[in-house]
Amino acid sequence: MECKKALVEAKGDLEGAEVVLRKAGIASAAKKATRSTKQGVVGSYIHAGAQIGVLVEVNCESDFVARTDDFQALVHDLSMQIAAADPQFVRREEVTEAALAKERDIARSRALAEGKPEKILDKIVEGRLAKYYEEVCLMEQPFIKENTITVGDLIKSKIAKLGENISVARFVRFKVGDTAAAEEASENA
Amino acid sequence: MECKKALVEAKGDLEGAEVVLRKAGIASAAKKATRSTKQGVVGSYIHAGAQIGVLVEVNCESDFVARTDDFQALVHDLSMQIAAADPQFVRREEVTEAALAKERDIARSRALAEGKPEKILDKIVEGRLAKYYEEVCLMEQPFIKENTITVGDLIKSKIAKLGENISVARFVRFKVGDTAAAEEASENA
Repeated sequence: MECKKALVEAKGDLEGAEVVLRKAGIASAAKKATRSTKQGVVGSYIHAGAQIGVLVEVNCESDFVARTDDFQALVHDLSMQIAAADPQFVRREEVTEAALAKERDIARSRALAEGKPEKILDKIVEGRLAKYYEEVCLMEQPFIKENTITVGDLIKSKIAKLGENISVARFVRFKVGDTAAAEEASENA
Repeated sequence: MECKKALVEAKGDLEGAEVVLRKAGIASAAKKATRSTKQGVVGSYIHAGAQIGVLVEVNCESDFVARTDDFQALVHDLSMQIAAADPQFVRREEVTEAALAKERDIARSRALAEGKPEKILDKIVEGRLAKYYEEVCLMEQPFIKENTITVGDLIKSKIAKLGENISVARFVRFKVGDTAAAEEASENA
């Protein structure tokens, strides 16, 4: 309706109509509504006792792949991985500068306290950062069901099998009482 | 172990031992480990088709209440409410200043554009803000299964029935493609 009105107003000129729509702030919304969105599913896992829960969005390219048993099984495995291994980020690129600086500082101080020679400090720090990434990044964690591969490897094997790109868009993990503990910690700080 | 060592170090004096522990940065952790944490459950709801998912943490005072059918049913109802009505905040106090300022600005501009007299503008703006709270705050939304009461009323009735305080700690709602849309929006901005 809005588009038709704009076209009339712009006397049938498409570009003119877009200007009319953009002035009305509608063009960007219309564009969003018509473009092909990413496909995928939202999966969840509630651990026995309901004290830990996970929500994860996993994307692929087509609705067809999203419906396959293979894809659904992957989403389930990822949810369980997140519940068990408590990652903080999806991938290395998402680790914040602040978190990284803190880890680097801790690694350096620890190495110094352990009396490591200055000239190998950088190497030790890099080694410990690699270990940190493995702990906090979902993609770099050992897969809980098969710890000789990483979660990233697991996803790559599914990409090869299903023939579509697959990516984890986001996840959250709630543990009962975590917010209360965080509030108290910040009050005590 | 740490406590015992500290007691020995302080020669059996409890307060002295606490000082020793606090200096070691252990007292606050020990306090957290022993205090009664908030009880509750994490619940989830995946809407048919797995395109929308919700994770919610609901707290109460005892593990006993958390296990009751009434409480579990409430958690399920809240998850469905969040999936269907897409709230942005748990309660009014959590609405950010920025979001509020934006809504106030829109409400005022709209009222002016509609030619409302200046002297009743504030009233109109307040009325529209009340409506906004009703839309975005879970506690103020009409309950989807019984829209003559709010979600807050529903929880109050459960508090009365179960005899314990109940509160929603946090929730998230994922819709497939939302992050891609948000990224594109910020790229276009």
